[in-house]
Amino acid sequence: MIKRIGVLTSGGDAPGMNAAIRAIVLTAAVHNIDVIGFHHGFNGLLEQDYQMLLPQHVQHIIQQGGTLLKSARCKALHTDNGAQQAAAALHSLQLDGLIVIGGDGSFRGTLAIAKYYQGQLIGVPGTIDNDVDGTDYTIGFATAIDTALNAIDKIRDTADAFERIFLVELMGRHSGYITLSAGIAAGAEQIICPEFGTLTEANLQTILTPIQHAQLLRGKSSYIIVVAENSYPGGTTALADALSKALNIECRACILGHIQRGGSPVGADRILATKLGAYAVEQMVNGANLMMAGEVNQQAVLYPLAKTGDKQKQIDPYMVRWQQCIASD
Amino acid sequence: MIKRIGVLTSGGDAPGMNAAIRAIVLTAAVHNIDVIGFHHGFNGLLEQDYQMLLPQHVQHIIQQGGTLLKSARCKALHTDNGAQQAAAALHSLQLDGLIVIGGDGSFRGTLAIAKYYQGQLIGVPGTIDNDVDGTDYTIGFATAIDTALNAIDKIRDTADAFERIFLVELMGRHSGYITLSAGIAAGAEQIICPEFGTLTEANLQTILTPIQHAQLLRGKSSYIIVVAENSYPGGTTALADALSKALNIECRACILGHIQRGGSPVGADRILATKLGAYAVEQMVNGANLMMAGEVNQQAVLYPLAKTGDKQKQIDPYMVRWQQCIASD
Amino acid sequence: MIKRIGVLTSGGDAPGMNAAIRAIVLTAAVHNIDVIGFHHGFNGLLEQDYQMLLPQHVQHIIQQGGTLLKSARCKALHTDNGAQQAAAALHSLQLDGLIVIGGDGSFRGTLAIAKYYQGQLIGVPGTIDNDVDGTDYTIGFATAIDTALNAIDKIRDTADAFERIFLVELMGRHSGYITLSAGIAAGAEQIICPEFGTLTEANLQTILTPIQHAQLLRGKSSYIIVVAENSYPGGTTALADALSKALNIECRACILGHIQRGGSPVGADRILATKLGAYAVEQMVNGANLMMAGEVNQQAVLYPLAKTGDKQKQIDPYMVRWQQCIASD
Amino acid sequence: MIKRIGVLTSGGDAPGMNAAIRAIVLTAAVHNIDVIGFHHGFNGLLEQDYQMLLPQHVQHIIQQGGTLLKSARCKALHTDNGAQQAAAALHSLQLDGLIVIGGDGSFRGTLAIAKYYQGQLIGVPGTIDNDVDGTDYTIGFATAIDTALNAIDKIRDTADAFERIFLVELMGRHSGYITLSAGIAAGAEQIICPEFGTLTEANLQTILTPIQHAQLLRGKSSYIIVVAENSYPGGTTALADALSKALNIECRACILGHIQRGGSPVGADRILATKLGAYAVEQMVNGANLMMAGEVNQQAVLYPLAKTGDKQKQIDPYMVRWQQCIASD
Repeated sequence: MIKRIGVLTSGGDAPGMNAAIRAIVLTAAVHNIDVIGFHHGFNGLLEQDYQMLLPQHVQHIIQQGGTLLKSARCKALHTDNGAQQAAAALHSLQLDGLIVIGGDGSFRGTLAIAKYYQGQLIGVPGTIDNDVDGTDYTIGFATAIDTALNAIDKIRDTADAFERIFLVELMGRHSGYITLSAGIAAGAEQIICPEFGTLTEANLQTILTPIQHAQLLRGKSSYIIVVAENSYPGGTTALADALSKALNIECRACILGHIQRGGSPVGADRILATKLGAYAVEQMVNGANLMMAGEVNQQAVLYPLAKTGDKQKQIDPYMVRWQQCIASD
Repeated sequence: MIKRIGVLTSGGDAPGMNAAIRAIVLTAAVHNIDVIGFHHGFNGLLEQDYQMLLPQHVQHIIQQGGTLLKSARCKALHTDNGAQQAAAALHSLQLDGLIVIGGDGSFRGTLAIAKYYQGQLIGVPGTIDNDVDGTDYTIGFATAIDTALNAIDKIRDTADAFERIFLVELMGRHSGYITLSAGIAAGAEQIICPEFGTLTEANLQTILTPIQHAQLLRGKSSYIIVVAENSYPGGTTALADALSKALNIECRACILGHIQRGGSPVGADRILATKLGAYAVEQMVNGANLMMAGEVNQQAVLYPLAKTGDKQKQIDPYMVRWQQCIASD
Repeated sequence: MIKRIGVLTSGGDAPGMNAAIRAIVLTAAVHNIDVIGFHHGFNGLLEQDYQMLLPQHVQHIIQQGGTLLKSARCKALHTDNGAQQAAAALHSLQLDGLIVIGGDGSFRGTLAIAKYYQGQLIGVPGTIDNDVDGTDYTIGFATAIDTALNAIDKIRDTADAFERIFLVELMGRHSGYITLSAGIAAGAEQIICPEFGTLTEANLQTILTPIQHAQLLRGKSSYIIVVAENSYPGGTTALADALSKALNIECRACILGHIQRGGSPVGADRILATKLGAYAVEQMVNGANLMMAGEVNQQAVLYPLAKTGDKQKQIDPYMVRWQQCIASD
Repeated sequence: MIKRIGVLTSGGDAPGMNAAIRAIVLTAAVHNIDVIGFHHGFNGLLEQDYQMLLPQHVQHIIQQGGTLLKSARCKALHTDNGAQQAAAALHSLQLDGLIVIGGDGSFRGTLAIAKYYQGQLIGVPGTIDNDVDGTDYTIGFATAIDTALNAIDKIRDTADAFERIFLVELMGRHSGYITLSAGIAAGAEQIICPEFGTLTEANLQTILTPIQHAQLLRGKSSYIIVVAENSYPGGTTALADALSKALNIECRACILGHIQRGGSPVGADRILATKLGAYAVEQMVNGANLMMAGEVNQQAVLYPLAKTGDKQKQIDPYMVRWQQCIASD
């Protein structure tokens, strides 16, 4: 029977991590399980830096961005020695299980601990990138889209007033999920992300053509290109310079950066975090181990932690096709 | 072959209706289909009050609340005479089809026209209530949740500062979808909606007990009850008065009302509207008739218009159970 | 020399109260003054319910709505006995001074204490109503305007889509400041506030005429009337009913209520709160007593607490005239 | 008697420009004055590219960002030939006056026209930079502060979660107004702007010391430095790199850029724009010429256009001193 568990947030922080912590603590309380929270991701586990988490500690945190447990990356865990040390800490603190809120990198760290730890290990997908296999959405993704949209809507105002071309760079190192979603939702005139092929100086014309077409035929008063980070050699600023030169029009780059990680989570993220946090505790009570609590087709499901990074999640092909259809018109 | 279609927005307006109109117009343009937009819902059809909708007319409306075509209810369509008149208008304007953006009431009106019209009739679910069968979400629901949340978060600030009990009434005449979703996302201490049973003066104690429990045991500094409209005889203000009297604490009612219908749509609604608007046109081209374009498990699907009001959509039972579990603790 | 002071927030809470507390604590730290914060306004003083306030306690509260010290009204202070008890508490806690953040009602309570207390008493104007004499703006007013605007902008969307008349009731029991400011900023078609004269069933025609005029001449697609609370016998809902009946058009009332008190303070309120909080401490160090720290013409100034409620602050006559000029057109 | 005037928006666009256009059109209508609006700033004047502006054209634009007249810079006006051409256009369109909404650069262009034009020329200060002499605030400044704050608050979330140092670069090429205001309102740990002296690699220690101090003594979990653009050789990214190297901690730069120009104007900007737009028309009717409509101490005032760029407006010395006091603690 489970009496005492740990929880930590790991990797890049995401809006909704606090909501997940809250759901874990409240659900654990219903099952008479004690919860301790480690600070700074796995670092807090290695250093036994933690705090008790009672229901009153999680009051009114559902709407707060960031994570009260702090997050961090943890190089030490990448070594076998680190994994052993983590397992030893879990044992010495008499924890029956650990819930890790983070992305697939954090889940790899979790699996490393499994070799030396007999308790239950459960993951909850928390990352703005929505690049974790086994769940339709990750906690933080919906908020990141709306934060990006809010910024792009503002840029639309000034782009429209000044008749400029803007390139807006969004996060997503390995995945165009945020870029495609925000680009479609912003009504961007063009979207550039890794899934659409590699862009270089050599094939720059592929993105120049629709711009020239739009200017000639439609009299667009502004033109916004949403770009995933790492889409062009030298970055989005270099791409803006290349476009400015080729088109002889001022093209400006705007790098949204870390504002995409912050802010009060939107409803969808708060609900998802609440659902997955609660489900993680319930399934731990039911004996689950080495599983991630995800949501597929509105249903909470378990998915093997070992497979969460297996394959790139596919972006909705219908929307990709529609976007390309519209852009090439 | 489809050459010319009409589109209208009907019933209570919802954020994202403009995004749906935009997607219909842009997709139609790709298929060389002309689009005319009727004003004020079916009234504009009956009165042949309309405008041409070209791609330049829908520039930069994806982010705008309301509907550029205006919406309205239309009593005339409830008569057989009205349906005949609508069909006659569609024929005289040489329309090969009509796309109706609205809720299940609007779809009933659409079906009435079908008796007298040989063209194709397609529905797109646009209503904040999320009470249409055949689609996981309706356009406008996600935004309504976030608008409600934004207001409840502000009420939390003042409730917390003043240590008051607040009742926040949300929309949803026949369904607790908005109330349950916003209540969970807001971390409301209690949620009252029709799905949880009927509340009267006689069984008021069922909601008093958790309040008294929370005050005694947890020292909560604020207590927010999210209430679906029409949950108590005399309304939410009467309920607040009854609670004030029973608890001898000031309980205030806050009726959110129509602010829930407005505002720039959030990303989820813009994407859903874009997807369903595009899908509606494509399926019309493919010959679909008397169907609604919905989304089930992230896939665009067709669903018979005649069945969209068939059964009450069920609120996620997992979240209902979790909420009750936490509240009764 | 001042070594130790108290601070409390009193009356209706206002966004920016936390920012004022932060500035007081940080400025006191520079002057090596200890600060204790009383909970629940003057109640915490009477009951000696308080906490130490060190710089780390006020980290990252500048952006938070509400007040970490909680606020409340305090009937006990209205009696001579209460004032004596408050003074005794200040003496027993060895406080050299007390800073009260609140409105003119709270300042009257402060003055009552002065009869029995030899330390320094300073007020900081914190109320959304902007009805305190001796300062151009009160802390919280700017945020309340923007919260109201945000809601009215949303109502505009739905009013415009449905072509309805909306009455939006704003706070301000004795003053039309919020109503006039928000009404002008929202581009409301009409503004009703106490300063414009008393409205009853008898002179209802004065507000009907511009509505009828607008409908006939301008083809307005929506009509929004911003109304100060207590502007019509029976309230704004009764006024909406009266208009509906007289015009034979659906007029809806929307009571914004307590959402106007919450939310993260806007920049203007954070800056004003920071300035006045710092100034209050500095002037206390300089020997000020029975004064309010206000801002007049961008300059921090002292103003006698006894005069803060003296006369109704006048609403900018230029804007009143402009509004009436436009409305009567 | 004035029968017909022109209006244009010039230079960098600012939130509230639409509200100013609306007030000009509505006030002109009351005085039976026709208004035409030139597109793209002075370019539209030179090319006689304009539209009639009737009250129905400015319905519901008070809340919209950008400018419906579009803005632009206009090199042609810098030549004597351009000024003559502009004057000729004003004469040929039989305009009795022109209202220019923009910054002091646009006002210099306006003055150039005066040599060849007998009508009345009035300026309205619209720029986010608040660097125009003769008015306490410019239209757009308040919104730019709140947009910056909103972004910095989000960065605070992630900085706090990850315990990072962030440098946030704000606009303001020649003035630290936005930076100081937003920095204070955000509770930034440090503010760097031109008014505080020149920063180079040589005196980097002046900003390192408070960071090191904060880390040692206060255990701050995040550290945000708000930086005016052009504050360091090589830009804010170079400064972040220099700090990273010196402190051996990851310091990240975040360049807010053009999002600061967009967005729906906040209440303060809508009210200021309404007041100054109305005042500009009224004073033109009263015979004013070569003047800017500004606001000083809440009063609308006229100020010679020729002096609007005379001296750098001084940042509130009280707040500068307070900020330095706190930072050096």
